[in-house]
Amino acid sequence: MQLLKDRILAEGKVMPGNILNVSSFLNQQVDINLYNEIGKEFLQRFNSVPVTRILTIEASGIGIACVTAQYFNVPVVFARKFRAKNIDSNLYLANVTSYTHGINYTISVPKQYLNESDSVLLIDDFLANGCAMEGLINIVHESGAKLAGAGVVIEKGFQGGGKRIRQQNIRLKSLVIIESMDDNNIVFRQ
Amino acid sequence: MQLLKDRILAEGKVMPGNILNVSSFLNQQVDINLYNEIGKEFLQRFNSVPVTRILTIEASGIGIACVTAQYFNVPVVFARKFRAKNIDSNLYLANVTSYTHGINYTISVPKQYLNESDSVLLIDDFLANGCAMEGLINIVHESGAKLAGAGVVIEKGFQGGGKRIRQQNIRLKSLVIIESMDDNNIVFRQ
Repeated sequence: MQLLKDRILAEGKVMPGNILNVSSFLNQQVDINLYNEIGKEFLQRFNSVPVTRILTIEASGIGIACVTAQYFNVPVVFARKFRAKNIDSNLYLANVTSYTHGINYTISVPKQYLNESDSVLLIDDFLANGCAMEGLINIVHESGAKLAGAGVVIEKGFQGGGKRIRQQNIRLKSLVIIESMDDNNIVFRQ
Repeated sequence: MQLLKDRILAEGKVMPGNILNVSSFLNQQVDINLYNEIGKEFLQRFNSVPVTRILTIEASGIGIACVTAQYFNVPVVFARKFRAKNIDSNLYLANVTSYTHGINYTISVPKQYLNESDSVLLIDDFLANGCAMEGLINIVHESGAKLAGAGVVIEKGFQGGGKRIRQQNIRLKSLVIIESMDDNNIVFRQ
């Protein structure tokens, strides 16, 4: 997606620890017109598969998922990161290890919002090691729903998540894939 | 907003601790068509004031803020709940006490995304004791921006937040205000 590549080159900042900071337009300040272009692009990339629900994870996936959902005209469900007070037996749960933040957490989705009649599109802003995405995949499998695919705005191709998810024959579409990056240079996969 | 009242009466569940669970359409599963109606309603209620940015707080405010921002055609900025690794001097910070969750936390917004040339509309899903909203208000004041107003989807009128914020002459518009609620009955303010 050329619009997105141009924006990453103009405003993205490579930070220590393989962090790509795109907070000026994607995940802290939001360019709502760009979000709409992202939503249209996801529709184009997944228009051959039925989608009944979009599933994402709090926090920065929510806005992208909601704007995208307008184009698919389906509800969004978001997985919450675990809070002790919300424990109950009516939740699908999955464990996630975040290498970026160095923590483990659990994500949850109420069982009533996903079931075997659904065809679920996963949406998130970033894919790096893929642990959050794999948590969402596990929740979809546990629910008995079909997994329509996974749409990611920015995949860090030099980390292992995308490769591992594609090896499971999951329809993963990343709007841009970064092949490599350092302080001076961001290289996209062709 | 009648559409929202009807939906709350049909699907809202009053839980122990003054919790109104509307997760089936507002803040865990999202009815994207309802979000669009909410966005249009906020535009109508704030169309007399200039707005250059919408400010919200993660997580459940983000989707509503993004869909609403389409009608105002302005960027969204979201305050993040504090994580130790993100400390730096380029952040506006405010302390928040959550009575609902029984915790204190800090919210932050990068200084580069709000300044004295802005006119900021605050958007959130719920207003109860008002502490999160007051944190956002403090950040707007610290930035030197004008506060255009605050738009809330559901205000719990029997808790103190709305009253305290209106006493500061802040243009607070709640799409529905709940006067009282118990297991059997939800009463809206006229």
